Amino acid sequence: MKSAATSERSPDPRHSVRATRTAGRAMRSRLLAAASRLFRERGLTGVSIADIAEAADAFPSQITYYFRTKEALFVEAACRDVLYVGRAAEQHAGKQLSPSDYTRALVESVMGTDAVGFFVETMTMTRRRQDLAPLVERTVERLHAEGLRAYAAEMAARGWHSRLDPETSARRFWAIAIGVTIEGQAMGRSADELAAEMRGLRGPQADAPPDAARLRVIGANDPVPDTPSAGKEKQR
Amino acid sequence: MKSAATSERSPDPRHSVRATRTAGRAMRSRLLAAASRLFRERGLTGVSIADIAEAADAFPSQITYYFRTKEALFVEAACRDVLYVGRAAEQHAGKQLSPSDYTRALVESVMGTDAVGFFVETMTMTRRRQDLAPLVERTVERLHAEGLRAYAAEMAARGWHSRLDPETSARRFWAIAIGVTIEGQAMGRSADELAAEMRGLRGPQADAPPDAARLRVIGANDPVPDTPSAGKEKQR
Repeated sequence: MKSAATSERSPDPRHSVRATRTAGRAMRSRLLAAASRLFRERGLTGVSIADIAEAADAFPSQITYYFRTKEALFVEAACRDVLYVGRAAEQHAGKQLSPSDYTRALVESVMGTDAVGFFVETMTMTRRRQDLAPLVERTVERLHAEGLRAYAAEMAARGWHSRLDPETSARRFWAIAIGVTIEGQAMGRSADELAAEMRGLRGPQADAPPDAARLRVIGANDPVPDTPSAGKEKQR
Repeated sequence: MKSAATSERSPDPRHSVRATRTAGRAMRSRLLAAASRLFRERGLTGVSIADIAEAADAFPSQITYYFRTKEALFVEAACRDVLYVGRAAEQHAGKQLSPSDYTRALVESVMGTDAVGFFVETMTMTRRRQDLAPLVERTVERLHAEGLRAYAAEMAARGWHSRLDPETSARRFWAIAIGVTIEGQAMGRSADELAAEMRGLRGPQADAPPDAARLRVIGANDPVPDTPSAGKEKQR
């Protein structure tokens, strides 16, 4: 390949540009990871740029170079985290075998972290800081779009039937996640309580066709389907 | 009556206690109203105790006497406002004639003010200020309880059938209202857009029995029921 051949005649300006870009991305990512951990523990006002630089083994000037302000770093860290949690939840849910387990896994993955709470802080912050709004806005749009894409793909691949149109189901997922998180913060609820409240408010989202219902693995918490043609009859 | 007779032999100590209490309640209420207006316009950090005192024609010391801190006044004003808006919404919705108009009126009343946005700010504030959490917690409980009571009473009085159990319907109303408000703030949505998003995410809540559907007044936005026994047939 051309790039491999030319790299022996160093310095290749494209190669060093690429190396610089890679190093830049790695530093950005390290700063975001350190910032996320500190902000989640202590909140925006409890963390300084110097604290984040120290935790990431970097200089304060590198933070202002990549993010300009502490508030912009706060918003970017929260947006990155909630998108990551949304994708991890889809992957975890994708391994489940029934619609009810899929729905439960999605909710428990998202509510099992404090990423939604962290993201909510940035959303309320942008009410008074319109300069920070565009990234939050794009993140909400991506959460909706990625949620819709994953949900619609699961329904199609498994032959499940969504009770609501998939777009409403995906958007409602995030509205309820946000609402339940904020209420839960005010009520001092645990992650388990938040997940239980959210599951109750969402209700069943999808149904498997009768064939799939007979073939699927029956979990401990699933009611045994009351189908006359099922191989095993439930004792009454 | 006894109090009327004794009031002529003034000073009646109970009378003056009552007068003092009434004056105290009036001052509290005046301070809350002024604070609410200023906080909604400028946010917590944009308003001082001196500003509120001036707007309410009071002394700063009266604010600290009744509320101790600006933050506590902020929380109490937001809690009072959201409870008021919830009740006003129930009253407005109670005048509607069909389940779909009832649902729409509830959503539009609540989303037509910025009371939910103001309340959300206090909810996120209590995440770092646990001393202010109890009032917010009681307010969330009251919103749920009052919403449930009003909704269940409407269903029973009109013979409507709720699609969800009424408690889930009432709790989901507030979770979605909060989630949609926060997303909408980040997205720069108008009150009308928030209401439309919330109506879409809630979906139909209740159904009238067939008789009531034929008798109800048909609004401009309602589809004409396609019932063969209806007096007027829609032209096609």
